[in-house]
Amino acid sequence: MTAPSARDVRHAAERISATVHRTPVMTSRSFNREAGVRVFFKCENLQLGGAFKIRGAANFVRSLTPEELKRGVVAYSSGNHAQAVAIAARKAGTKATVVMPLDAPQSKFEATEANAATIVRYDRLKENREEIARRIADETGAITIPPYDHPWTIAGQGTAALELLEDIPDMDAMITPIGGGGLMSGCALIAHEIKPSIRLFGAEPEEARDTWLSLRKGERVEIPTPATIADGLRATSPGAITFPILKKHLEGVLLVTEDEIKSAIRFLLTRMKILVEPSGAVPAAALLARKLPAGIRSIGVILSGGNIDFELLASL
Amino acid sequence: MTAPSARDVRHAAERISATVHRTPVMTSRSFNREAGVRVFFKCENLQLGGAFKIRGAANFVRSLTPEELKRGVVAYSSGNHAQAVAIAARKAGTKATVVMPLDAPQSKFEATEANAATIVRYDRLKENREEIARRIADETGAITIPPYDHPWTIAGQGTAALELLEDIPDMDAMITPIGGGGLMSGCALIAHEIKPSIRLFGAEPEEARDTWLSLRKGERVEIPTPATIADGLRATSPGAITFPILKKHLEGVLLVTEDEIKSAIRFLLTRMKILVEPSGAVPAAALLARKLPAGIRSIGVILSGGNIDFELLASL
Repeated sequence: MTAPSARDVRHAAERISATVHRTPVMTSRSFNREAGVRVFFKCENLQLGGAFKIRGAANFVRSLTPEELKRGVVAYSSGNHAQAVAIAARKAGTKATVVMPLDAPQSKFEATEANAATIVRYDRLKENREEIARRIADETGAITIPPYDHPWTIAGQGTAALELLEDIPDMDAMITPIGGGGLMSGCALIAHEIKPSIRLFGAEPEEARDTWLSLRKGERVEIPTPATIADGLRATSPGAITFPILKKHLEGVLLVTEDEIKSAIRFLLTRMKILVEPSGAVPAAALLARKLPAGIRSIGVILSGGNIDFELLASL
Repeated sequence: MTAPSARDVRHAAERISATVHRTPVMTSRSFNREAGVRVFFKCENLQLGGAFKIRGAANFVRSLTPEELKRGVVAYSSGNHAQAVAIAARKAGTKATVVMPLDAPQSKFEATEANAATIVRYDRLKENREEIARRIADETGAITIPPYDHPWTIAGQGTAALELLEDIPDMDAMITPIGGGGLMSGCALIAHEIKPSIRLFGAEPEEARDTWLSLRKGERVEIPTPATIADGLRATSPGAITFPILKKHLEGVLLVTEDEIKSAIRFLLTRMKILVEPSGAVPAAALLARKLPAGIRSIGVILSGGNIDFELLASL
């Protein structure tokens, strides 16, 4: 597969514009004060399906031929990608089967089912979701939509950064959470094309620092399934396609503790009145804990999603 | 005092434009489906100070003469108005004293203090806040900013509806929560000037239905201090200035139970990812419980504020 480019991100933006929301950019004086830097939040928690994932899924589905589309699509995901594929498939008039871990938040099951997708549950600690998806694809002829490691998925996710830079052209840096690296890869491609001087950072929970370790070693490192509350960032290694992009474009990955993630969720909720899921709060956590290197006066943050169980929220 | 007019709302909009945020308007497919009507939410929970109250407070402060401004301002409030007066005073370079009930949410005390305002606490069940404010005004020469029953306050609050109708001109109806009636009075004046056919509704907790009772009786009714969780709607009667405006413009007041308020907070948070305080969720609760009369296809809702203690939220 050809590595994706900034041009692919621009094409994706045209392809998905009728399907996805252009999400608002928020700022908060109290957040800026706490973080010591001007912050622009791209609110993908207010995106269709509650997360940026619809960007990649819609770009993928819209890139299929009519014949391929008829065969249906299949996806594996901790939740947001599943829901995104279900929505993208419904909007394109095809059917989706999604493979979700048994311990995904209940809200994500419900939202996926609401889009008439077939759900196949699996045990995250014992079974391999890629194999399950491959078996379904083999049996039904459905096309697999990878959650991050595919040029179409990556290009779609990059449209979040494209919109953010269109709205706020003058920022020194940008940061996104890193799970498999799809979001950051797409964002990095377009951000460095638009503004070569922009400094790019990923953010990971310490519990799930597979990309941090991989960048340090210079090659993809595999870690055991991480136990972080950031359920969207539990990938065990960066992707084969995403990693070279991350390696080329990222200045670094900032690590945060589970407590820092929880504090960030509380801050965003009580002070900014917006609900962000644990994965989406990871970059904000890094900024609130002042983990950015010196010399950055303004930074864009992709608030990647807002799908969190009310029970988990109450427990914070 | 002269009753306020739609023209006063337009003047207020000019006067406060540099002080307040123009808040976004949100829509939600899942809310529309649940309510059976197209709903446009004016997000005053994302307003400066976390509530619409800054509109009235800023209009009041900006209407004072330089001499009056020097004397400082004083306000009594369950919280949002206090915070708004503190912010408006700080921005205008004067000092504020605010009289707040002992049982106001902790978050509101903190936010008011953060704006360098002096706080005087009182017992909501035993003391009269208006008297306390009057005493402070007498002793210090400060100007009292009433929370709702003043033409300048009312005109300022109405700017929320003005902005909403500028953004979404074609709606059949509009609804706001009713405490003392300041928000709805200002909104009604401007809404009926812009669009005489628009149907206007208030929303109150059943526990705090002073305006519902007053409209029924045709005159202002006083009720005992209500025990609703909607702490911003605990006024015991509509105002002397607001009531005639409400009487003239409102089609009705929709009543909701405490459980309906809690459900609405959860829906707005988990499905729309935004935090709304109990008072602000009252109109949404009425829509979700389908209490609107027939024949309304689209409605604007002022989501009046988002200041809620995290502990109260967790208890829902």
